[in-house]
Amino acid sequence: MKCLIIAAGKGSRLKQKGDSKPLLPLLGIPLIERVIRTALEAGVEEFYVVTGYHGERVSDFLDQLAQRLEIQITSLVNDDWEKGNGLSVLKAREILQEPFLLLMADHLFEPSIARALTELHLSNDEIALGVDGDIRNSLIDMEDVTRVNSTGGKIHDIGKGLSDFNGFDTGIFQCSPAVFQALEQSIEKNNDTTLSGAIRILAAEGRAKAIPVNGFWLDVDDPADFKRAEQVLLGRLRDKPNDGPISRYVNRPISVLFSRYLVKFDVTPNQISLFSFLLSVVAAGLFALGGYLVLVLGGILAQLASIIDGSDGEVARLKFQSSDFGGWFDAVLDRYADAFLLFGLTWHLLVNQGSRLVLLIGFMAIIGSFMLSYTADKYDNLMRERIKTGTKGGLRMGRDVRVFIIFLGAVTNLVLPVLVLIAVVMNLETLRRVIVARD
Amino acid sequence: MKCLIIAAGKGSRLKQKGDSKPLLPLLGIPLIERVIRTALEAGVEEFYVVTGYHGERVSDFLDQLAQRLEIQITSLVNDDWEKGNGLSVLKAREILQEPFLLLMADHLFEPSIARALTELHLSNDEIALGVDGDIRNSLIDMEDVTRVNSTGGKIHDIGKGLSDFNGFDTGIFQCSPAVFQALEQSIEKNNDTTLSGAIRILAAEGRAKAIPVNGFWLDVDDPADFKRAEQVLLGRLRDKPNDGPISRYVNRPISVLFSRYLVKFDVTPNQISLFSFLLSVVAAGLFALGGYLVLVLGGILAQLASIIDGSDGEVARLKFQSSDFGGWFDAVLDRYADAFLLFGLTWHLLVNQGSRLVLLIGFMAIIGSFMLSYTADKYDNLMRERIKTGTKGGLRMGRDVRVFIIFLGAVTNLVLPVLVLIAVVMNLETLRRVIVARD
Repeated sequence: MKCLIIAAGKGSRLKQKGDSKPLLPLLGIPLIERVIRTALEAGVEEFYVVTGYHGERVSDFLDQLAQRLEIQITSLVNDDWEKGNGLSVLKAREILQEPFLLLMADHLFEPSIARALTELHLSNDEIALGVDGDIRNSLIDMEDVTRVNSTGGKIHDIGKGLSDFNGFDTGIFQCSPAVFQALEQSIEKNNDTTLSGAIRILAAEGRAKAIPVNGFWLDVDDPADFKRAEQVLLGRLRDKPNDGPISRYVNRPISVLFSRYLVKFDVTPNQISLFSFLLSVVAAGLFALGGYLVLVLGGILAQLASIIDGSDGEVARLKFQSSDFGGWFDAVLDRYADAFLLFGLTWHLLVNQGSRLVLLIGFMAIIGSFMLSYTADKYDNLMRERIKTGTKGGLRMGRDVRVFIIFLGAVTNLVLPVLVLIAVVMNLETLRRVIVARD
Repeated sequence: MKCLIIAAGKGSRLKQKGDSKPLLPLLGIPLIERVIRTALEAGVEEFYVVTGYHGERVSDFLDQLAQRLEIQITSLVNDDWEKGNGLSVLKAREILQEPFLLLMADHLFEPSIARALTELHLSNDEIALGVDGDIRNSLIDMEDVTRVNSTGGKIHDIGKGLSDFNGFDTGIFQCSPAVFQALEQSIEKNNDTTLSGAIRILAAEGRAKAIPVNGFWLDVDDPADFKRAEQVLLGRLRDKPNDGPISRYVNRPISVLFSRYLVKFDVTPNQISLFSFLLSVVAAGLFALGGYLVLVLGGILAQLASIIDGSDGEVARLKFQSSDFGGWFDAVLDRYADAFLLFGLTWHLLVNQGSRLVLLIGFMAIIGSFMLSYTADKYDNLMRERIKTGTKGGLRMGRDVRVFIIFLGAVTNLVLPVLVLIAVVMNLETLRRVIVARD
């Protein structure tokens, strides 16, 4: 399905942030790029963007974006951008002669909402609007939102001033070309150049559907909206079901702050992974020196590296840079980092205690933490499911917990007990997996 | 599709091997079980077996087998087993009223041949026979084989004495119930109680199809056939495309001899994996003692363990015991064995040279050989394909080569160079994979 995006308005309430609203970077990515990339995730392949205020700057950016993402984006110009947004929609009249997805450059949303709209089958003379029925939605600016009154899936009325309403206009539509006739009618008869005007005409004839949608969407109009959008996007990074307890309650809250800062720069997730790895190597080197002060310093660095290791994935998600290679590269570096840290601690003990027996303990800790990753990843989904099912009663010590224990051990100078603990727990857990997988 | 197996004959030419031919173990598995398990792999689900000579012993075994494999096997008795085999087929007349697969208890074959027959769609009055068109097939006993003459997919004549022929009867049929009428006709009119007699009648009416088949099949009638069958099954174990050079040319030829011996006992593949692992641990312990003699002994044990490590999979394939868990368990033990061997060598150097620097080299060798397995297995098929494509120019040093180098290093007392070599090659290969996977 093709997609029309309206990016013509001035956005004067966000002037302090920058002169062109579609190009305003939100967590490192311009609003219009966020909308386009979210629509891509929802399955859209071809874009038409109506520009107006600072139109050339916007269309220059879109040309670059089209090249970078290897997609098709066509810019249309609306010189009457100061009038109602319906005129911008009309600019696509000659081009879009089949049903299309209609989006606003300043409305952020989850891909699932756009997908719900694209998957509809409308008859020729209908349009459909995604309507948020949660009228207590705390992200909504009640002064500014367009309100919708609908029953039985049909819109009765739509407008900002509505006192009788049961939902909000998310700004996400599927339109048939009937919308163009309705716009002309609205301009001619009512002298109303807004899109809402056309929807009212269609609604009066029972041709405007209300599609209930769930999930995040937000109209970014002023600095307060902007901040809310940042908070929601950052907050969602903390919802990772696979996070261990230390990740969830210690590392993630800090790494999100790092990520918020890092997205402003041209730093890739893989560079962050590599930096975290190098920090771990330095930490291991400090461990190996043997003194208590460097031990503490190494422990702090190791924990810091573990925190920063959360940022690579966060930045990737915030900047649409997630990749299979990125996840794999991060995992490979983590295995090296694990081994270096444990080897550093082993060397520390060897320097301080001299007994070669610590080598055996260090070796078992290194092999055990390796095996934990290996047994988890080695096999296909079937085997992973078996292990997972059996994990309920198992010992869970993910990388986050392991590094945190190393940090605690370093600070408290209890290196030997930490190595013994890791060696015992990791190898016992591997043994348990062998038993569980066997059935 | 249901399957009828004829297991009534006496098999007097194999008398020296055992009194009941269907129950004769070939590489640890009775012939009748081999036939049933191969048919299972070809998709058959329900079995009817006609017994005769020593019928009770055979049907007792089949009852146990049905329980063990959780399948349905029904025994039918033919007291006239000394007459032609057509009478055995006739015993199923009341039971099989739809097309069925017909097999002989003493004909071994690849699943693909049975599948080719089961996938045919015959019309109601037809039968089809798998015909081997390779008349120079070296596995064939030309004196005893049933010969077939066919053109255009139709059998013209069939029989042992045929001088004009272009293929061999594999003993694998798909029959419609028409075969029963043809058998009765053959007995009544020609006093011929063989299955071939009935096929001749159907062939004369153009109702016997010849289906060309490829791949291994063998009629086991005398000690020479028996030996040939063993040789073919064992030979096929050596055709593993993933085997490295040491596996292929050094380990496999020896492990196949072990496997041939091991299948006679009630030893499971997982027990063999575990035994091989324990041998490696002992080898590592010998390394760690520090002397040259124990070093050599350890090297020999390590190489022996690597050879025996091939037998687990071989025994599994010979005894139909392959499993996902088995492969996973073997891989997990191999990772532990790798680490123990390298740790043992490192300890050996530490004892003999005293310099702690060897610890760093040993550590890098351990982590490198781990990473080689981890990077190969960590990701989905996509990533594995990418790595494989890029591996053409890469350094290949699989486990077989690694252990062989350890063996050579131990025997020649060149432990340090071996550890350095493994550390460098393994980690460089991991680095190369990171670069290749990146594209």
